[in-house]
Amino acid sequence: MTTIITGIAASPGISIGKAFRMRNPDLHVEKTTITDVNAEVLRLEEAINKAKLDLEAIKEHTRLQLGDDKAAIFAAHLLVLSDPELIQPIKEKITVEQVNAEFALQEVAAMFISMFEAMDNDYMKERAADLRDVTKRVLAHLLGTEIVSPSMITEEVIIIAEDLTPSDTAQLNRKLVKGFTTDIGGRTSHSAIMARSMEIPAVVGTKTVTTAIETGMVVIVDGLDGKVIVNPSDDMIKQYEKKKANYDVQKAEWAKLVNEKTVSRDGYRVELAANIGSPDDVKGVLENGGEGIGLYRTEFLYMGRETLPTEDEQFEAYKTVLERMEGKPVVVRTLDIGGDKELPYLSLPKEMNPFLGFRAIRLCLDMKEMFRTQLRALLRASIYGNLKIMFPMIATIDEFRKAKAILNEEKERLKEKNISVSGQIEVGMMVEIPSSAVMADCFAKEVDFFSIGTNDLIQYTLAADRMNERVSYLYQPYNPAILRLVKMVIDAAHKEGKWVGMCGEMAGDEIAIPILLGLGLDEFSMSATSILPARSQISKLSKKELAVVAEQALTMSTADEVAGLIRSIL
Amino acid sequence: MTTIITGIAASPGISIGKAFRMRNPDLHVEKTTITDVNAEVLRLEEAINKAKLDLEAIKEHTRLQLGDDKAAIFAAHLLVLSDPELIQPIKEKITVEQVNAEFALQEVAAMFISMFEAMDNDYMKERAADLRDVTKRVLAHLLGTEIVSPSMITEEVIIIAEDLTPSDTAQLNRKLVKGFTTDIGGRTSHSAIMARSMEIPAVVGTKTVTTAIETGMVVIVDGLDGKVIVNPSDDMIKQYEKKKANYDVQKAEWAKLVNEKTVSRDGYRVELAANIGSPDDVKGVLENGGEGIGLYRTEFLYMGRETLPTEDEQFEAYKTVLERMEGKPVVVRTLDIGGDKELPYLSLPKEMNPFLGFRAIRLCLDMKEMFRTQLRALLRASIYGNLKIMFPMIATIDEFRKAKAILNEEKERLKEKNISVSGQIEVGMMVEIPSSAVMADCFAKEVDFFSIGTNDLIQYTLAADRMNERVSYLYQPYNPAILRLVKMVIDAAHKEGKWVGMCGEMAGDEIAIPILLGLGLDEFSMSATSILPARSQISKLSKKELAVVAEQALTMSTADEVAGLIRSIL
Repeated sequence: MTTIITGIAASPGISIGKAFRMRNPDLHVEKTTITDVNAEVLRLEEAINKAKLDLEAIKEHTRLQLGDDKAAIFAAHLLVLSDPELIQPIKEKITVEQVNAEFALQEVAAMFISMFEAMDNDYMKERAADLRDVTKRVLAHLLGTEIVSPSMITEEVIIIAEDLTPSDTAQLNRKLVKGFTTDIGGRTSHSAIMARSMEIPAVVGTKTVTTAIETGMVVIVDGLDGKVIVNPSDDMIKQYEKKKANYDVQKAEWAKLVNEKTVSRDGYRVELAANIGSPDDVKGVLENGGEGIGLYRTEFLYMGRETLPTEDEQFEAYKTVLERMEGKPVVVRTLDIGGDKELPYLSLPKEMNPFLGFRAIRLCLDMKEMFRTQLRALLRASIYGNLKIMFPMIATIDEFRKAKAILNEEKERLKEKNISVSGQIEVGMMVEIPSSAVMADCFAKEVDFFSIGTNDLIQYTLAADRMNERVSYLYQPYNPAILRLVKMVIDAAHKEGKWVGMCGEMAGDEIAIPILLGLGLDEFSMSATSILPARSQISKLSKKELAVVAEQALTMSTADEVAGLIRSIL
Repeated sequence: MTTIITGIAASPGISIGKAFRMRNPDLHVEKTTITDVNAEVLRLEEAINKAKLDLEAIKEHTRLQLGDDKAAIFAAHLLVLSDPELIQPIKEKITVEQVNAEFALQEVAAMFISMFEAMDNDYMKERAADLRDVTKRVLAHLLGTEIVSPSMITEEVIIIAEDLTPSDTAQLNRKLVKGFTTDIGGRTSHSAIMARSMEIPAVVGTKTVTTAIETGMVVIVDGLDGKVIVNPSDDMIKQYEKKKANYDVQKAEWAKLVNEKTVSRDGYRVELAANIGSPDDVKGVLENGGEGIGLYRTEFLYMGRETLPTEDEQFEAYKTVLERMEGKPVVVRTLDIGGDKELPYLSLPKEMNPFLGFRAIRLCLDMKEMFRTQLRALLRASIYGNLKIMFPMIATIDEFRKAKAILNEEKERLKEKNISVSGQIEVGMMVEIPSSAVMADCFAKEVDFFSIGTNDLIQYTLAADRMNERVSYLYQPYNPAILRLVKMVIDAAHKEGKWVGMCGEMAGDEIAIPILLGLGLDEFSMSATSILPARSQISKLSKKELAVVAEQALTMSTADEVAGLIRSIL
């Protein structure tokens, strides 16, 4: 009998094939009393060392297959295994309570995991997942059992699993694994991100695939619509083969646009750029026809490590991105840390409302040496390409002026030392706080460009934490209030002859694109894989017609009315 | 030698007099091993019972002197002493560890206090203060010592204390205590609030008054400018006597305006209303010449208790306020819980960013029965006065429509049961989320009035938690972005013939009042004690001239420029 299971579309594409059901090893632990405490601590240390060797190997494998940034997660795992704050309590538990290493490990890890998970913070939840993964690995060594890993797969399969740990995903063989589906996880979980970067269709968060599917069953993974079909009928298989073929045709059509400019049906030119997090992402941007980098999130340089990156480390990263982009524009956002992104080594105080707290430019204007170091690295790298610098979370003109003054001071100091700096660096700001959208006319006189950060702008304008499920119904990109603020920013900038980009998720959304084109947005920055579909969509749209539609949208009362209007014309 | 100590002006006025330095009793605790566990538990229970008797007496004293709502804090203290989650662990510690009751109490209380304080949440910090207060009281009984209390004072004094606990403040004798100053506390701490309602000048948060001042020294407490002068010279005493006299003259002048209407120099009429939290506050509103209630915060009805208030309990409260106001307008805000205001008995999940979370109307539209109960109580009370209902935290038109539909349903149901409901109830909303300010033209077609809640509007518009000291520099009422949003709301409302009030702190601010008058605000709602100064100020201002000044302020770039402009014309 055919069953259709719905989940979250985590990576696009269609796969039809045989299921491979991954089972977690039996890591059941009994509590026992031990007598030789030293021997038990030694057993723990040996198991940890073996786990570290595993991780080193997986890290290397991942680095070669997927690049440095994807391998970084295993560097983080290795750090966990070297963290005395985790290891010491386990050893103490063994010693004080005279219990076996397995039990001590499990208890201590469970305590940390539940602590992290209770934090209602996506970042800490991912840390809980990391710790769970690492714990399993050490436990398996202690218990002398083996972790079933995707590297054991020898034929083409679709993987069915409760969850894929980062180490599992890293071992996936692209040639054999045609898709995967899991019970848990969301669009931003590690496995989903990895699936997209490997271009394997994936559906996550299904809740039930491991109960419904056994190894050998035929399944279809529809990563376009977030569906898993178990035991499909012949008709359904045909139907999905057609859907797959259509998707392949569409992809092929999109591929033709790689070296094209982005032009609307009526000849209006816009720029499609990409959001990146590291130099390794540049390859994907160019393969997907990116005309620039609209947002380089520099915070990843600062994360997953124990100290601040040096000026030279940063210089190398910025230089690499600028060189690889060969003169195409690269908009670098200065450090946006705080909020949900923490740097443990800065030991910032806990805040009651971190999204409304001491973050991004607020923090940089306070920790000036850290900020100056980044700016120097950027200025020195500027001669290797087309650099634009923007400051995040600007709420007042004072903040922009202060940040720009510091940048100018560093520029002067470098010049005094005869270090070359490009004379063409544009300096702009993110518009992601309502006050700066409302005051865009004043800001427009002082900036070279704006980039609208819709993820934050929406959450502040509607006062709804985008991570909080209970208020997620208020995270409304098409709310006319958002569109009106976007229009204010674009009109204010154009009046002063400045350009406006957008680097939130909205910029790559097929309902939003027509409105944004109509409102006159100049640059759309999105994930690399969205660029070609967007270019294709824009080539079929008329800017002139959409200007009228956008005006109409601005007079509407609700987000649903706006979405309905756009759907009616698409 | 004269010393000047600066602190936070917590309650206005000037006092000159002799210091009375309150000392905490010696509550030093030794850990001892006990043998008769049952006897020790009994000792604890007896001390708790004595403390409860104290509290009952103080509660009654406070109720008679200051009213029900000020006495509520002691009801909360009594609840703490009846809480098994606190008492049970103390008894267990006595039993399991065979330690004395003093030690067990101190250890367990310290654990809870540090837990509450670590939460970086003003509400929980106040709970920590409550617990500290209650613990001291029980400890004193266990140790057979006496808590030095302000009730021992027999001559006119100015109290100097590290902090005044709520129980201390409740025992202050208005006739003898002429002022107070403390090391810790802020404008919103219990002691500050009590000082204002008792009209005793107070300066809090000085950090050093207890180190600098001993009993008998002459001190001046300047509750207008937040200064404490220790050992003032004769000249300074004269100077401050003059300042006090001026303030008294000003107060007398204000008092003449109690029964006057609020009219600008050029004859423009506005309404000055008060913000209240309970029926007991109405007396102060009328004494201070309030022309209405602009904000009745109903959440206090729900706080400091263990279950939801019944419909009849609410009905009685609303009826009392409406009757006492004798036909003057009373704007009641429906339940605004969540954010920093928690109701323990609703056991809502912890949120990462409570200010951007599931609160106010969001929660009411989900917990419909609770909401309907409140609306029924309001509708039934409506025939006793001039009721206006407003919904808090409206972000989208859908929310307003849903809330209003529920209100109308309840109205119909009551009518079907032949229960009288006023036919004149206006239904409006708070404008405290940027989206609703930006969309005010659409909202204005559906509401009867707006009330701008600036405390939240400012924090969302500038994305800065107003409780977070590190970003408090961004809490800018005069930021032109805020003024522009206020103007949008007023213009949109007036176009549809609706009125606009403001019930945030800004409405009573002497720099903001001229701008708001210039922008055409119809109703200013503030703390009762600010009404007469505001009426006096407005009587000297020209609405016509300020309309021009306000337009100029809107074109400025920064809050400082705006404040400078207004100061230059005052």
